[in-house]
Amino acid sequence: MAKEITPRDKDYSQWYNDLVIKAGLADYSAVRGCMVIKPYGFAIWERMRDALDAKFKETGHSNAYFPLFIPKSFFSKEASHVEGFAKECAVVTHYRLKNGENGEIIVDPEAKLEEELIVRPTSETIIWNTYRDWIQSYRDLPLLINQWANVVRWEMRTRLFLRTTEFLWQEGHTAHATAEEAVEETIKMLHVYADFAENWMSVPVIKGVKTANERFAGAIDTYCIEALMQDGKALQAGTSHFLGQNFAKAFDVQFATAEGTREHVWATSWGVSTRLMGALVMAHSDDDGLVLPPKLAPIEVVIVPIYKGEESIAVLKEAGNNIKKSLESLNIRVKFDDDEKSRPGYKFADSELKGIPVRIALGMRDLENGTVEVARRDTKEKEVLQITDLEVKIKHLLEQIQLNIYQKALDFRADMTHKADTWEEFVDLLENKGGFIAAHWDGRPETEQAIKDKTKATIRCIPIDNVQEAGKCILTGQSSSQRVLFARAY
Amino acid sequence: MAKEITPRDKDYSQWYNDLVIKAGLADYSAVRGCMVIKPYGFAIWERMRDALDAKFKETGHSNAYFPLFIPKSFFSKEASHVEGFAKECAVVTHYRLKNGENGEIIVDPEAKLEEELIVRPTSETIIWNTYRDWIQSYRDLPLLINQWANVVRWEMRTRLFLRTTEFLWQEGHTAHATAEEAVEETIKMLHVYADFAENWMSVPVIKGVKTANERFAGAIDTYCIEALMQDGKALQAGTSHFLGQNFAKAFDVQFATAEGTREHVWATSWGVSTRLMGALVMAHSDDDGLVLPPKLAPIEVVIVPIYKGEESIAVLKEAGNNIKKSLESLNIRVKFDDDEKSRPGYKFADSELKGIPVRIALGMRDLENGTVEVARRDTKEKEVLQITDLEVKIKHLLEQIQLNIYQKALDFRADMTHKADTWEEFVDLLENKGGFIAAHWDGRPETEQAIKDKTKATIRCIPIDNVQEAGKCILTGQSSSQRVLFARAY
Repeated sequence: MAKEITPRDKDYSQWYNDLVIKAGLADYSAVRGCMVIKPYGFAIWERMRDALDAKFKETGHSNAYFPLFIPKSFFSKEASHVEGFAKECAVVTHYRLKNGENGEIIVDPEAKLEEELIVRPTSETIIWNTYRDWIQSYRDLPLLINQWANVVRWEMRTRLFLRTTEFLWQEGHTAHATAEEAVEETIKMLHVYADFAENWMSVPVIKGVKTANERFAGAIDTYCIEALMQDGKALQAGTSHFLGQNFAKAFDVQFATAEGTREHVWATSWGVSTRLMGALVMAHSDDDGLVLPPKLAPIEVVIVPIYKGEESIAVLKEAGNNIKKSLESLNIRVKFDDDEKSRPGYKFADSELKGIPVRIALGMRDLENGTVEVARRDTKEKEVLQITDLEVKIKHLLEQIQLNIYQKALDFRADMTHKADTWEEFVDLLENKGGFIAAHWDGRPETEQAIKDKTKATIRCIPIDNVQEAGKCILTGQSSSQRVLFARAY
Repeated sequence: MAKEITPRDKDYSQWYNDLVIKAGLADYSAVRGCMVIKPYGFAIWERMRDALDAKFKETGHSNAYFPLFIPKSFFSKEASHVEGFAKECAVVTHYRLKNGENGEIIVDPEAKLEEELIVRPTSETIIWNTYRDWIQSYRDLPLLINQWANVVRWEMRTRLFLRTTEFLWQEGHTAHATAEEAVEETIKMLHVYADFAENWMSVPVIKGVKTANERFAGAIDTYCIEALMQDGKALQAGTSHFLGQNFAKAFDVQFATAEGTREHVWATSWGVSTRLMGALVMAHSDDDGLVLPPKLAPIEVVIVPIYKGEESIAVLKEAGNNIKKSLESLNIRVKFDDDEKSRPGYKFADSELKGIPVRIALGMRDLENGTVEVARRDTKEKEVLQITDLEVKIKHLLEQIQLNIYQKALDFRADMTHKADTWEEFVDLLENKGGFIAAHWDGRPETEQAIKDKTKATIRCIPIDNVQEAGKCILTGQSSSQRVLFARAY
């Protein structure tokens, strides 16, 4: 089973696709550009969603739900937003089908909408149109709302999880009385995302701010977390936008201040999506399958009995169930793979394909010795453990794996982050190494665009803790006060 | 605040609308027929969703996610399904907008889809098209999958939660090797829904099967749970369908049996939606606001301090926080409404409007006596309790309220369920009492339709535990072997 996965060094892109499909994460659908998220993939996404949702609630946010459809005219209200979002989108023009002359189903021409509806590509417009009714005075602020939803952006080239026409995400939309509070919220949520990426996904990220070229359409500033994949390409894993008063002005959302004046509200929005599933897969997995961090693994431990002869079945089933119960008492998610028809070899390969962090093999001889063989997915190391020690050892091992995966990705990123001081160095690094390249840039959008056109590398971000340092732009030689992070990206 | 709600006996329908809006459950949106679910309403829905989701998982189901869009041609594949679902729906015909000559945004005529996409009104077709690839042999069965999603059915007359163009729901779609297993699943999920309605929502329901007229388009049998609202109208709160082999045949989903033959798969589907929110509101609430069963209440207990003078503030805040912490240690959801600017009277009215099951008022004199005043929302009874007794007393009180709300609704339904043996009795009951009417019917769809046309009453269901009894149809006088349940319905 696992053997059917194309090796990474042969074709990284094909490896990713094979893995997503064969591990049961997602599949293509009959609708161009839309995917089906399969049960195993959805179980991982549910764990991501629940962990993020808890963090949003801890930081004072409530969930709500806004309409899927947005009237076309709403997009025209925020000038830069429409350029970014209203173009490649699904447009609902009719509200009825009927039987045609030959009994086939056709769109009823009489049921044409007066104003077309756009399937939301993002919800700033419909939400700020609603906030106008919800916000009257400073007492209504801050308004801290999040929505879990599906969104649609018509994509020509799609890849499972990374870029699909429909995807699942969360979008936070907050309203504040002052610019300072809104900026504080923007950065707070950036840290929430970074904390989730690092401590749950075991994916180290760079926190930074986007250049004007890469900014969200309608934002004053876009902050982001950028991760590095095993092929040396960067992946934007989450964004948090300071929107200024742009949407409040476009939708006329004003509030009465404590002093009795009326002012436009300050806004943020922030989101992560099922794209994180792609990042999770590409950051850690290997040629045998997924490598999941225990906190996000639907199954943390699989127990595989090595049956030998009829009489071993009952004995091993009882022993396996006892181990399962004892680990579950520690809230560890355990599967006892006790099917008698499949061979242990198949079960081992399947557990590797699915990225289950710990595998316990349980045979008759082990049992006589009071031991089991424990294999960890990340390093493939095996050790023999006393059954009586399992609770404390497995709990500790899961924590170790969570950290080790992170450390491995962090070491990889350190190896793959370079400085370039000349154009030749820059191109050489891009072509031969990949990864992040810290280089000087003159701050001009045209220069950024020219570099992108020549190399396909973009400025991923200006790290928020960036060191100020005098230098010269790698392309133009103009003076620069700091390095920015370039990479080719997903 | 609560006073602005129209009383039930003045205008029940307006009362419902006022309540939904003023209690912060939902609101109209800028898109015709679509609602905004506000944070408080969504918090209740989240509790419903989580409780149901846990029940689905306990019964072996996994979540997955299928595309929002369904190719138009899919609807033609199951003959009766298309009649029921493909008519009033949102049709996506284009995938791009562009700037028109005057700078306005128009639909790009060049970006017309070859085949229109329907925004899912329900997902049988896209899911069974997918199952064809997922099911090869009996080893792949049963396939037990659920999806939480938004769906769209173009409705001409909408009401918040009860009937909206877009709504949130879950749809279970299962595949089985035999008809018996599929029927067993259909009825199992009916019981799951009934258990949820009764033990979480405190809403008693009748479990029954629909007549052919009221059956899901494409089903062999539709089972349902029917609840009674305070105005005497019935509300279908959930349905579970035995689909036979209809969709398997339409999408050619066959499996290899253990004996090596090939057979079409047997199917079920089952769903509940945000409509349950409407049922919850209409079953229990009163003229002062919501009455929520504790298990679904986002806040189970609100603590209101009665400040008197500056020096009381610190004392009452400390005491209130201590009570909050002590109740939270029992996993009770508590809000300490310690805002100094609002008056207690406002807070009391607000807690009644929001349906918070228990309110604790905390004043300086109480505190000196070591007591608090505890008011329950359902009966409005108050009692003085010792602070030292609060943990055990409040825990018990919440359980009592959960049961009392259920009992009250059950008593109401018993009062509102009648037998009619003649047409005159039937019409008299409908006009003057409402509620469920158990009456004989000759089993003919035309008779059912005629009764509906004359009275607006429909057959809600044939209860699954129905007594067999000879009688004569109230309309035609033809012989009948059992009574069926009629009512006017939402």
